[in-house]
Amino acid sequence: MPYKISFIGSGNVAWHLAKAFDRAGHTVLQVYSRNTQSANAVAQVCGAQPLSSLQQLADDIDALFLCVNDDAIKTIAPQLAHHKSLVVHTSGAQSIEALDMLPYYGVFYPVQTLNAGKEVNFYEVPVCIEGNSKITENILKALADTISNKVYFVSSEKRRYLHLAAVFANNFTNALYNAAYEIVQQQGLDFDMLRPLIKETADKVQTLLPADAQTGPARRHDVQTIAKHLELLPEGTDKRRIYELITGIIGKQ
Amino acid sequence: MPYKISFIGSGNVAWHLAKAFDRAGHTVLQVYSRNTQSANAVAQVCGAQPLSSLQQLADDIDALFLCVNDDAIKTIAPQLAHHKSLVVHTSGAQSIEALDMLPYYGVFYPVQTLNAGKEVNFYEVPVCIEGNSKITENILKALADTISNKVYFVSSEKRRYLHLAAVFANNFTNALYNAAYEIVQQQGLDFDMLRPLIKETADKVQTLLPADAQTGPARRHDVQTIAKHLELLPEGTDKRRIYELITGIIGKQ
Repeated sequence: MPYKISFIGSGNVAWHLAKAFDRAGHTVLQVYSRNTQSANAVAQVCGAQPLSSLQQLADDIDALFLCVNDDAIKTIAPQLAHHKSLVVHTSGAQSIEALDMLPYYGVFYPVQTLNAGKEVNFYEVPVCIEGNSKITENILKALADTISNKVYFVSSEKRRYLHLAAVFANNFTNALYNAAYEIVQQQGLDFDMLRPLIKETADKVQTLLPADAQTGPARRHDVQTIAKHLELLPEGTDKRRIYELITGIIGKQ
Repeated sequence: MPYKISFIGSGNVAWHLAKAFDRAGHTVLQVYSRNTQSANAVAQVCGAQPLSSLQQLADDIDALFLCVNDDAIKTIAPQLAHHKSLVVHTSGAQSIEALDMLPYYGVFYPVQTLNAGKEVNFYEVPVCIEGNSKITENILKALADTISNKVYFVSSEKRRYLHLAAVFANNFTNALYNAAYEIVQQQGLDFDMLRPLIKETADKVQTLLPADAQTGPARRHDVQTIAKHLELLPEGTDKRRIYELITGIIGKQ
């Protein structure tokens, strides 16, 4: 059964969800954003009407997606108290309670790093849902199942940890890529020399557990290689601190 | 022009190189290892003769690959002083000088995490070569070009840094995957929820530079989300130390 869905916010998450819902046969009715240009961009990928005022939002929809930053959730939610549709936010870090002044509410959190314009296969994106009642959860489950093959019920409390873990797996990992980039860059070497290694490291844990995929001098307790590496990392630098901390952690495993 | 190649060592690197050379039309003649079983396994993928004694190594070959751990390079190299073929080691961390008692020597370092039995497209594996003379470098270049499209001349001094960078990009990244795994595991959540994110994070930097791909609360200086994360990480734990250190580093970028 197709749903009528509108969006508040027009960032990366809105862009991808609007596209996925449209592709799944739902009607994306309206997209509101203070940023007219990005509202137009999202409206265009899903055939919706772009709005420049929150007051123009139609009432007769099934679900309203709040794809805005965490601070804006708290500002906008009270303005939607008259809305009779299901309202969901898409934040990993915010509790479902951020919407508890509304009659029907929930969370719809895609666990993926999404960039507008960069295609992903949304069927492979894990989606964590939570509703304020069994009814909203059933609606969210039915809706999520139309765009993803990986739908999980996750409570706000557990979602906080999941979001924290995602920061390790994504943001912090990328910071290590950057450290590696800086090391080769300073030697005039091409970052392309590391790109296949980065890809394969991520590929390995698609089937293995990280503990079983762990290799390298720290894992082997190869103190000679570790000592040689430390010679290249001046004390008091961030890379030295990373090296010592993570080598110690791997060594304990 | 096909080469005649033999191997000392039968680990993951030997397995992949022997297979790649055989596939490229070279003759892999002999494989020596103290470990008879793995010598047989490598010999089998390339149609070579497995050897259980170093003395049986034939002299009339073009290149001898020393695919052994760093300590063993120093032990075995002096025993090859009578060898008239080109002898190369495949270590990222060892200088070319480890072989300087030999007439023709060099380094052939594939920048990839290789596991025997797990296929990789070797044409995409960056190979760093270094020779003790222009002649050996020409031979190594010709040979490397037959199995990889990404061959680089890299000096021992620069290769040390490249190897260090590879530890950040591979071993340390995997340690962060493991931290993420432990966080979700403790909440009874499925690591599958993070696997697509890990893959996409690595995919992004295949075209972008890491600095341009960086996202997350640390990059946004989102102190509220950072404070919420810290609530979940008891002081004095390794994950807390990682969180504080890397959040600080990203924040400075």
